[in-house]
Amino acid sequence: MLSSRLRTITRQTAITAALTRPVVQKTAIKSVPIVCSRRSYATKDKQVAYTVDKFPGYVRNEQFKKLTEQDVDHFKTIVGDHGLIYNNEDDLFAFNTDWMHKFRGKSQLVLKPKTTQQVSDIMKYCNEQRLAVVPQGGNTGLVGGSVPVFDEVVLSLQGLNKIRGFDSVSGILTADAGCVLEVLDNWLGEKGYMMPLDLGAKGSCHIGGNIATNAGGLRLLRYGSLHGTVLGLEVVLPDGTILDNMSTLRKDNTGYDLKQLFIGSEGTIGIITGVSILTPHRSKAVNVALLGLNSFEDVQKAFKQSRVELSEILSAFEFWDKNALHMFKKHATPKDVMENEYPFYVLIETSGSNKDHDDEKLTTYLENMMVDGVAEDGVVAQDETQIRALWSLREGFTEALGKEPAVYKYDISMPVPKLYECVQDMRQHLMDGGVYGQPDSPVTDVVAYGHVGDGNLHLNIAASRLDNKVSALIEPYLFEWVANHQGSISAEHGLGVAKNEFLGYSKSPVMIKMMKTMKNMLDPNSIMNPYKYLPTHN
Amino acid sequence: MLSSRLRTITRQTAITAALTRPVVQKTAIKSVPIVCSRRSYATKDKQVAYTVDKFPGYVRNEQFKKLTEQDVDHFKTIVGDHGLIYNNEDDLFAFNTDWMHKFRGKSQLVLKPKTTQQVSDIMKYCNEQRLAVVPQGGNTGLVGGSVPVFDEVVLSLQGLNKIRGFDSVSGILTADAGCVLEVLDNWLGEKGYMMPLDLGAKGSCHIGGNIATNAGGLRLLRYGSLHGTVLGLEVVLPDGTILDNMSTLRKDNTGYDLKQLFIGSEGTIGIITGVSILTPHRSKAVNVALLGLNSFEDVQKAFKQSRVELSEILSAFEFWDKNALHMFKKHATPKDVMENEYPFYVLIETSGSNKDHDDEKLTTYLENMMVDGVAEDGVVAQDETQIRALWSLREGFTEALGKEPAVYKYDISMPVPKLYECVQDMRQHLMDGGVYGQPDSPVTDVVAYGHVGDGNLHLNIAASRLDNKVSALIEPYLFEWVANHQGSISAEHGLGVAKNEFLGYSKSPVMIKMMKTMKNMLDPNSIMNPYKYLPTHN
Repeated sequence: MLSSRLRTITRQTAITAALTRPVVQKTAIKSVPIVCSRRSYATKDKQVAYTVDKFPGYVRNEQFKKLTEQDVDHFKTIVGDHGLIYNNEDDLFAFNTDWMHKFRGKSQLVLKPKTTQQVSDIMKYCNEQRLAVVPQGGNTGLVGGSVPVFDEVVLSLQGLNKIRGFDSVSGILTADAGCVLEVLDNWLGEKGYMMPLDLGAKGSCHIGGNIATNAGGLRLLRYGSLHGTVLGLEVVLPDGTILDNMSTLRKDNTGYDLKQLFIGSEGTIGIITGVSILTPHRSKAVNVALLGLNSFEDVQKAFKQSRVELSEILSAFEFWDKNALHMFKKHATPKDVMENEYPFYVLIETSGSNKDHDDEKLTTYLENMMVDGVAEDGVVAQDETQIRALWSLREGFTEALGKEPAVYKYDISMPVPKLYECVQDMRQHLMDGGVYGQPDSPVTDVVAYGHVGDGNLHLNIAASRLDNKVSALIEPYLFEWVANHQGSISAEHGLGVAKNEFLGYSKSPVMIKMMKTMKNMLDPNSIMNPYKYLPTHN
Repeated sequence: MLSSRLRTITRQTAITAALTRPVVQKTAIKSVPIVCSRRSYATKDKQVAYTVDKFPGYVRNEQFKKLTEQDVDHFKTIVGDHGLIYNNEDDLFAFNTDWMHKFRGKSQLVLKPKTTQQVSDIMKYCNEQRLAVVPQGGNTGLVGGSVPVFDEVVLSLQGLNKIRGFDSVSGILTADAGCVLEVLDNWLGEKGYMMPLDLGAKGSCHIGGNIATNAGGLRLLRYGSLHGTVLGLEVVLPDGTILDNMSTLRKDNTGYDLKQLFIGSEGTIGIITGVSILTPHRSKAVNVALLGLNSFEDVQKAFKQSRVELSEILSAFEFWDKNALHMFKKHATPKDVMENEYPFYVLIETSGSNKDHDDEKLTTYLENMMVDGVAEDGVVAQDETQIRALWSLREGFTEALGKEPAVYKYDISMPVPKLYECVQDMRQHLMDGGVYGQPDSPVTDVVAYGHVGDGNLHLNIAASRLDNKVSALIEPYLFEWVANHQGSISAEHGLGVAKNEFLGYSKSPVMIKMMKTMKNMLDPNSIMNPYKYLPTHN
C-alpha cells in the first residue's frame, strides 16, 4: 500500500518545521496503487495503414534494387536459415510497424545477424547490390526512423546482445549494440553501477538504438548527454567496413572524434554494433518528491532553487500539467497521490551517497518551497515501491496517450521560460482555428509534460480522429513558434520520417548542406535508412 | 600562514575518531608558503631553434603561396593597419614560438581580427590564394599545434574576446572564442556559476583553443568532457563559410552533431569563433585534502573508495609521485606540507552545496583510509588560501619541469591499474639503456603525476640536455607500451607536430583513412594548420 507511508508536506507543517525544526509531520493520504505497465510492441492489428498511403508524397528510389530470391539465398549463407524472416506477413509485421502504429513499411525481409562480421558481410552485399537497409534496435522510436517506408531490408540488431566487459575501477562498460537498456542497467546494478540514461522504453529499447538516436531521457540532467558518456563505438559503415573505435578511455585526443558523428545519426551513415560507455555509481540513497504548484513561474522558481539547494544530488526535475494528470487518470485507475489538484506538478529525484544528508537537503528544500509559497502541496516517497509508483505516473503519460484515438506528438526544446507559453499559445491557436474547445471539436486535449532541467517539452495533442484541418493548424505553426524562440523541433526524439522535411526550422542551409555532404561521403549509394533524417526536397 | 591551520589527520587520530567520533584532532604542521606563479608567455629568448632545424624532415608544401606585399595590403583592408603584425621579428617572436620554447616557426604575418566576419573574410582570401593558416588562441599548447612550422600566416583569436550572453536559469554561457578561460571563470563566479573545465594555463588559454584541443584538465572527473558540455559552436570553415551552430539547448536532435568534429580538431578543419557552453553551479563548499601513500595500489584503493564515499561531491582526484615532489622542491621554496615524505601523494577535492555534509563525508572517508591502512598521512585545507596552496603544488609541476635544461613530456591514458607500471617500466628501460641512474647520465629524473580518475598520466623525463640516444630509447618504446595496454598516446594534449606521425599507435588504418577523408572534404586545399595532426607519411 502506497497511501499510508507517503510523507505529505503541507504549507502549515513546513512553516512549523521551519520555525521549530522538528521532523516534518506525516499525514496519511488516499490510496494510490498506480499501475506501471510496460510499453509493448506493435500487436498484429493489421488495420495500421502503410506510411506511403497515410503520408502521400513518398516515391520509391528506383536506384534501389528490388529483393530477389538470389539475394535471400545469399543472406542465408551469412546468417543461416534461421537468421532471417522472409515473406511471412505475420512475422514481418512487428518489424514493419512502429510501436505507436503510426508508421508501417512493406519490407519482405528481416535479417538477424549475431556478430559484427555478419553485419559487415550483409552491408557489403547490400551496398554492392544497391539494396536499401533499415537498421532496427528495439523499435521504440517515435518518429518512424526504425521501420521501412517501402521495401527496405530490415537489419535487426537483437541478435547482438552480449555484454563484452566491465572495468569496476573506472565503471566503463563494453557491450553489443543489441543489449536491452534495462538488462544492462540491472546487470550493472548488481555491481553497484547504473546506466547513465533511463527512459520509459527501457524494457525494450537497445543501447545501440539509444546511441543512434542520441536518446536523452530522465537522467540527462545529472549525467549529461551520450556525447559525453559514450567513450567508444564499433560501427559498420555502409560499404561493410568495420570502424573499430571501441576506446575504453575517458581521455583520448588522437584525431577527429569520429564516433560522435554516429551518435544521433539515426542509422543513416552506419550501423552501431558495439558500445563503450562510462557508467556512474548507483546511488545508495534515492529520494523522490512530488510537488503541486499553481503556475509555471513557480515551476521555474522551484527548479532554480533546486539547483542551489539540491545541487549535486539533484538527478531529475520533471513537470507536467493537470491535463497530463487527467489523461493519466482517464486510462489508469486509481489515480490520486494528492488530495487536491493543482495546475502543475513537479517530480524531483535526488540521488546521493548518504541518506541522512540527502533527506536533510530535500526536507529543507521542500520546506523552503512551501514557506516561500512556491509549492502548494508536497509528498515524499518513503520506500522503493513508492518511488516506483511516483515515477510510473510520470512515465505513464505516453502509454495513456497511446490509448487515445489519435495523438499528435511533439518533442521540442527551448529556453525554459518559454516552455509553457508554447503550450498556452497552441491551445489558443487551436481554439481560434475552431478545432478545440467545443464539445464536437476534433481536438480533445492538449497535454504537456517534460524535463524542465533540459528545456524539453513533450507536447501532445489528443484528437478523436486524424484530421487534415488539425494537422494544418499545428504544422508549421508549432515549428515556426519554436524557431522564433531559438528552440529545436526535435529535442530528443529525432527526425526520422516525421520531421526530416522540417529540419530547416532548426538548422541553417549551410548546416544542412554540410550534413548532406557528410551523408554522401559516408553513404554514396544512399542505401542507409532512406527517405528519412535529411530533407529530401530542395 | 598556511601552517597553523592545515588540519592533519594521522592514523592514530583517525582510529580514535573512528572509535569515539569526535572532531578530528588538529595539529600544527610546518610552514608552507607555496609560491603559485602564473605560466608566462615565451620571452624573447632568440636562442630557440626553428622547428624545421630541430626536427629535420619537414618539407614546405610548395602548393602554398608565399606571402606578398599585395596580400598584406589586402589583409589591411580587412583588419586595418593595426590589426596585424608584419615583418617585425621581435613582435612576431611570441606568435612563432610555443611557450615551452620547443617549437618555432617562421611566419612573417600575424592577423588579429576582431569579428567573425573578419575571420571569414581572411579565410576566404587565404583559401583562394592558397595561403596556409595557423589559428592561434592563448598559445599554451604542449604539442606545437598553435605555432607555424614554416611561413604560415598566424590568425590570432585574441581580438575576439567578448562575452555574448548568459542564461542564469540554465547556466548556459555564450562567448567569443578568444575569451581567456580564467576571465570567464571569474565572470561566472560573480553569478554563482563556474566553467566546467580548469587547467594550469587558465590565465592565458582561450576557451576557443580549449575546445579546439578538447582540453581535459582538473574538473573533467566531475563535469565530463567538452563533447558533453559544449552545446554550440560558431566556426569559420577553410573557405570562409560561417557555420552557425550556436545552439543554447541542452537537447537538440536535429541532424548530425557537426560541432563535435571541431572539438579536438586542433584548427585543421575550421576556426572556432564562438562558443555556447553549459556551466555548473559554483559549489558553496569546497574541501581539499592531501594524502601520503606507500604504493600505487593504495592510490587505486583510495580512488575506488572515494567513488563510493565521496561520490557526488568528488570533484578531483589527482596523484603524483615523490619524484614530482622533489622536482617541485628543486625549483620552488619552501616546500613541505607534510612532515614526512611518501612515495605517492593524492590530492582530493570535494565540491558540494552543504559544508557540514561535505566535511562529514570527507572526514569519514579520510578516517577510513587511515584506519584501513590505505593512507599514511593526511592534511585538510582549512580555508581558501590553503586550498589554493595545495592546488598550486599540483599545478606547479609543469612550471618546475620547465626550469630543467630539457624535458621529454608525455601525456598518455590507459586503464588505471597500468598507470604506474608504465612509469616503472620506463625507468628500468632507461637504466637498461644506460642513460639514467648514473651520476653522469643524461636523464636526471623520471617524474609522474596525473588524473587518476581519468586514467591520465603525465610522464616527464627530465634531462641535462636533449640527446638523440635518449629520444631513441623513449620513442617508440613508450608508444608501443601504451598501444599494448589499450591506451592513448595523447590523453589531453593532442597531436600537433609532436605526435601526428605516431597516430597509428592509437588509431586503426581505417580510422586514419576516414580522418583524412574528413580533412580533405572540409579543407580541400589543406591550408589549415598544415604539417600537423594527421600523419603526413603513408
